[in-house]
Amino acid sequence: MKNIKLASRETKQRTIIEIGDLKIGQDFLLIAGPCSVEGEEQMLETALAVKQSGANMLRGGAFKPRTSPYAFQGLGLKGLKILEKTGKSVGLPVVTEVLDTRDVSWVCEYVDVLQIGARNMQNFSLLKEVGKTKKPVVLKRGMYSTLSEWLNCAEYILNEGNPHVILCERGIRTFETYTRNTLDLSAVPAIKELTHLPIIIDPTHGTGRVSLIPPMSLAAVVAGADGLVIEVHNNPEIALSDKDQALLPAQFDQLASEIWDMRAYMKKKVVSYL
Amino acid sequence: MKNIKLASRETKQRTIIEIGDLKIGQDFLLIAGPCSVEGEEQMLETALAVKQSGANMLRGGAFKPRTSPYAFQGLGLKGLKILEKTGKSVGLPVVTEVLDTRDVSWVCEYVDVLQIGARNMQNFSLLKEVGKTKKPVVLKRGMYSTLSEWLNCAEYILNEGNPHVILCERGIRTFETYTRNTLDLSAVPAIKELTHLPIIIDPTHGTGRVSLIPPMSLAAVVAGADGLVIEVHNNPEIALSDKDQALLPAQFDQLASEIWDMRAYMKKKVVSYL
Amino acid sequence: MKNIKLASRETKQRTIIEIGDLKIGQDFLLIAGPCSVEGEEQMLETALAVKQSGANMLRGGAFKPRTSPYAFQGLGLKGLKILEKTGKSVGLPVVTEVLDTRDVSWVCEYVDVLQIGARNMQNFSLLKEVGKTKKPVVLKRGMYSTLSEWLNCAEYILNEGNPHVILCERGIRTFETYTRNTLDLSAVPAIKELTHLPIIIDPTHGTGRVSLIPPMSLAAVVAGADGLVIEVHNNPEIALSDKDQALLPAQFDQLASEIWDMRAYMKKKVVSYL
Amino acid sequence: MKNIKLASRETKQRTIIEIGDLKIGQDFLLIAGPCSVEGEEQMLETALAVKQSGANMLRGGAFKPRTSPYAFQGLGLKGLKILEKTGKSVGLPVVTEVLDTRDVSWVCEYVDVLQIGARNMQNFSLLKEVGKTKKPVVLKRGMYSTLSEWLNCAEYILNEGNPHVILCERGIRTFETYTRNTLDLSAVPAIKELTHLPIIIDPTHGTGRVSLIPPMSLAAVVAGADGLVIEVHNNPEIALSDKDQALLPAQFDQLASEIWDMRAYMKKKVVSYL
Repeated sequence: MKNIKLASRETKQRTIIEIGDLKIGQDFLLIAGPCSVEGEEQMLETALAVKQSGANMLRGGAFKPRTSPYAFQGLGLKGLKILEKTGKSVGLPVVTEVLDTRDVSWVCEYVDVLQIGARNMQNFSLLKEVGKTKKPVVLKRGMYSTLSEWLNCAEYILNEGNPHVILCERGIRTFETYTRNTLDLSAVPAIKELTHLPIIIDPTHGTGRVSLIPPMSLAAVVAGADGLVIEVHNNPEIALSDKDQALLPAQFDQLASEIWDMRAYMKKKVVSYL
Repeated sequence: MKNIKLASRETKQRTIIEIGDLKIGQDFLLIAGPCSVEGEEQMLETALAVKQSGANMLRGGAFKPRTSPYAFQGLGLKGLKILEKTGKSVGLPVVTEVLDTRDVSWVCEYVDVLQIGARNMQNFSLLKEVGKTKKPVVLKRGMYSTLSEWLNCAEYILNEGNPHVILCERGIRTFETYTRNTLDLSAVPAIKELTHLPIIIDPTHGTGRVSLIPPMSLAAVVAGADGLVIEVHNNPEIALSDKDQALLPAQFDQLASEIWDMRAYMKKKVVSYL
Repeated sequence: MKNIKLASRETKQRTIIEIGDLKIGQDFLLIAGPCSVEGEEQMLETALAVKQSGANMLRGGAFKPRTSPYAFQGLGLKGLKILEKTGKSVGLPVVTEVLDTRDVSWVCEYVDVLQIGARNMQNFSLLKEVGKTKKPVVLKRGMYSTLSEWLNCAEYILNEGNPHVILCERGIRTFETYTRNTLDLSAVPAIKELTHLPIIIDPTHGTGRVSLIPPMSLAAVVAGADGLVIEVHNNPEIALSDKDQALLPAQFDQLASEIWDMRAYMKKKVVSYL
Repeated sequence: MKNIKLASRETKQRTIIEIGDLKIGQDFLLIAGPCSVEGEEQMLETALAVKQSGANMLRGGAFKPRTSPYAFQGLGLKGLKILEKTGKSVGLPVVTEVLDTRDVSWVCEYVDVLQIGARNMQNFSLLKEVGKTKKPVVLKRGMYSTLSEWLNCAEYILNEGNPHVILCERGIRTFETYTRNTLDLSAVPAIKELTHLPIIIDPTHGTGRVSLIPPMSLAAVVAGADGLVIEVHNNPEIALSDKDQALLPAQFDQLASEIWDMRAYMKKKVVSYL
């Protein structure tokens, strides 16, 4: 692909990103947690549950990119502090989205991994700024973006000196209305042909329907994904954002168990493409 | 969904379509064969191979809907005769696409299953005509169609008295160019919430790349698909259509084995959504 | 463009299609009339009005391609007879959509111009069948189709010996929901660079909103369109299809007057691209 | 539309934005100039020409949001200084794109109008930041965005206290490849039904082809647009960005003359929707 140099599969076989004992790109990354950080109790209860189910990273939004200025915009610094504290207390690294170049350096003080959201995929200033840090970056695919455009955005980060990019497919916009977006699982094997960077799947935003998250999660494992990010909330009905698409801890627990089993099955049995 | 009556999940739990011993909707349907019927030897060699690998239906196009009038349009009646003969000699039921209302009744003499292609999904005259037959119909999703529009097309067939409709997702058009289309696997669990009709996946047209067919085929099984239709050619390099996306018999054999294993695994292990 | 031969601008400067005194491709074509033929009074009243306003062709559907099998499907032969009679009595040529290869030859007995609808743009059997007649054919663009695919469909008709194809842009599907479709006016100058065939615009389906039809109609004239097709109904509130997007005769009268004035202005003043 | 309050047509008939004598939303806004500021001579020569042709605002990019990190990224501060100097010397207000929240306040020192590009339409931090200034903001529509999402972004700016938003349609992404994007002219009358904010059209990015700019510019005037932004370069062949879509000064001069004539014609003659 044109201009894809540092991110190209031709330059490297595979990127492994280490966070403590976790080797992303080799170990399966299972990120779970609520859409937004809403309070200490919500975070702790959810974090304990997902850790118990085998999640190895905790998510939680402190800055929320909302379509309307009148929607809940996140707790900001207060949210970051809760996220950091929760992660430490349960022993999970934490990831959060960053929206503004001015926030990058100080947000790094609180989290292990930065996330660039779909709407900011081509916010080139922000890409350069996270490229100047040492933190791993989850780079979500824009909802109208081609694989080539997405890899060019990874290239922006790599080109600033940060090699730790994790691609995340989260659904593209199509004409379908039954689902919130259309989860493009074929991006997984396609991306693996094009780049050495790990790719994870977000079935929560990718489908927007609780009932579709389990089948699409397992299908993602089978397609070869390096991880999943799944929204879990201890009480979705009172969630301040995305309440219709969060799993309950018990639902996540059942699913996580099937995910780990499927991953083991894949490693043992499938030889045609892995 | 508006106007979905006969096809609605509310009217029935599940449709099972019997062809000989094969129970579609209960048994896994594995259709294989070339894009176009090109000759007796090609068909027989390919059919023997795919039967050996466990395929339980043979495909082959006699009428080809091609973008350009100057492209190979299929062998027509001659192709149908070869398809019928091959199916009988290897012991597989056969499916072929029909393009014209005038052809429906006599094509039924040669094949077990009719196919409506993506470009004809909303050819309402053709839908009504196949609805007047007793043959099972594979109804492909239009490449820009919503689930609601697709089910309305199934409704056209059911409303004429033919209850034997098999839905087939074959990729939708998106902005991506690396793949030929974008295979929408989330359509599988979504469709199962909406209708009792079986749904199968076409990873060949859905991706248009040989390398993506194995991962997307297994992912389809895991998403809950009732079957797959995969293009196999004994000599893709000389194929008259779709030569870049047909599997060799040996590639199909490896994949089919993994498909059957995965299907067995799913039946045994996954309880969260099946 | 690949495979565009007979339709290519390289083979010919401009196609002029004569129907009586009307020279399509040179004179401006203004088609008006209801979505569906519903009865004699409806047709006569509407036809008299649009003729009075300067329309030079009458439209009316006898076979309606509806999303649901339970929606009004048109009056069929009865509708064709009403359309023919109305056209003769007011002195306007008539156009109607044909959906089925079996209907083409006998429908030709009743109308001056055949229409292929957007959903049938790639119904290649139907294209070949209308290509065997001598009737001019209005070929609508599929709602997800590229210009190249559209011209290939025109090529199907031309290749059968019928050179009288009129292209009609009627809106493409996009993510926008405020309008029914997105009218692609840039298709007008683009198509004129690629082919010698005339192109007309359907702002009714292209926007799906009465209020947007006047501005988009005049903009189409200015973009260089060879004509317009506009739905007019003498009593939209009781229309059996498309009632929310039909103009009243009085609205059409005002608009038609502005259309003719704008066409005259363009012919006199604009030199940069006409 | 949901959550559209300050931007809604229900709150106000029409926004007029004054810059010197220019009343945007009442007078026709004709912005011209190169894609990127490349040097003093380029800017002065182009600016003198477009001013002569009747342009009433000068554009020029100092920060370029490019798909690849290896493409020309703009001259930055040096570019801004050249832009400011050129604008003053020819007597035209100037507009430039801003990409980073950290740049907003100091960029305001050099320009009259800020632009938010399509890729940053949902960069909510940036929207809030420009909303805190007093400068008029040209807000481009995202290439996959609905009108509702776009107006919500305007709402972000208005909600911070800056009422001076100019909407700019610049083409949406579709399946078409002949044009760079698909210019959605129906957005003009649609937006005028929904909001009091002025809307201008960018036919340069909207089509990406020099030959389509004149017809689409005049069509935009007729659709009711409040202005146009057109790329003009004194020597497109050596332009550092967008060289295939810039008009020569002589081409712009011819077009501008037709634009002004058409605007006058519209004001005098068209009554059905203006």
